[in-house]
Amino acid sequence: MKLLPERTIERLSKYRRVLQRELDNGTDHIYSHELAKLLHITPVQVRRDIMLIGHTGTLRKGYGIENLIKLIGEIIDCSSSEQNVAIIGIGKLGQALLEYLNSSNTRLNLSAVFDNNPDKIGDSFGGTLCHNIDNLKKIIIRENITIGILTVPPEYAKEISARMVDAGILGIMNYTPVSLKLDHAFLEEYDVITSLEKVAYFAKPRHAEFL
Amino acid sequence: MKLLPERTIERLSKYRRVLQRELDNGTDHIYSHELAKLLHITPVQVRRDIMLIGHTGTLRKGYGIENLIKLIGEIIDCSSSEQNVAIIGIGKLGQALLEYLNSSNTRLNLSAVFDNNPDKIGDSFGGTLCHNIDNLKKIIIRENITIGILTVPPEYAKEISARMVDAGILGIMNYTPVSLKLDHAFLEEYDVITSLEKVAYFAKPRHAEFL
Repeated sequence: MKLLPERTIERLSKYRRVLQRELDNGTDHIYSHELAKLLHITPVQVRRDIMLIGHTGTLRKGYGIENLIKLIGEIIDCSSSEQNVAIIGIGKLGQALLEYLNSSNTRLNLSAVFDNNPDKIGDSFGGTLCHNIDNLKKIIIRENITIGILTVPPEYAKEISARMVDAGILGIMNYTPVSLKLDHAFLEEYDVITSLEKVAYFAKPRHAEFL
Repeated sequence: MKLLPERTIERLSKYRRVLQRELDNGTDHIYSHELAKLLHITPVQVRRDIMLIGHTGTLRKGYGIENLIKLIGEIIDCSSSEQNVAIIGIGKLGQALLEYLNSSNTRLNLSAVFDNNPDKIGDSFGGTLCHNIDNLKKIIIRENITIGILTVPPEYAKEISARMVDAGILGIMNYTPVSLKLDHAFLEEYDVITSLEKVAYFAKPRHAEFL
């Protein structure tokens, strides 16, 4: 199957989480306009995305939630097995992300965490062993880890990301404020301060009157 | 001045951080193609953004870094004073974000944190006092807080965000997995799992060969 656009993947991921919540609450069908409302997007967008992955609802009952969750899973999960993830740098942000991962029902499997702090190496973080960053390549290969969450101090970001890719990592989620460039892996970056400065800009009193 | 587009504001915020780093390293001028390279975008994009805010470099020496930082600040900061920020929910993620804020040289001023945990209320987090969430409105008004970072458990997200807006908050950065809708405040949302599932999708072995 052809790769879907990034924004579509983001929405499918969100649909699945909302649908799982509805299913857990005992709902078995949902209309596109209801799903749209839960995510504050347009019903047209929902229908377009869901047609794109080859699902159709009925006019009478809407989409079957269980089927739709399964179909989204076939598109965005690795169908053969879970994908293994590592968190590199288990400071406060790393630990917060670990809690997020462990409390969500994503198919992503946290296989290892890494740090250079001797007090953390060998400890368990939410059930996952912290390895010495010196063993990064060995553990990534052994545990078949393909996704890395980068939460090291900024001065290490470039070097460690290069070592991750060298070890076989195929995708990096970069939470450091350093903008990276990777040649042989997918890169997604999130910068806290940029988001906050954006909110601050649009939340200025002299602008807010236009909200 | 007319409001600039969201993506422009994000880039200006990133330019400023990179420029500050260059200035701290003793550089006083920079060419658009150098700035572009540091952020992995095109020189055309950089020149367009910087023309938009009314700055021009010289062909010989490029942009004067100190002037450019000052000009970006006039655009994206509140010119009269710092903007006050509160973190609502001081768990691991809240504490990680607090460290981020305290270690960056943004003009955003962290004025208060809130929680409902009696063990945290009254404690100092990186120098900022933790208040009882019951006093949210009173403290927000008293401290003139206009920006809120929402890191509460998902089940509280909707109620607390409504109370924040009611108290006078003009912008909310929502880190909970619950999608919100605000009527009288600017809203920016970031969902960890969506980002990770997107990386996972594009980092599948069967896709990675196209990278």
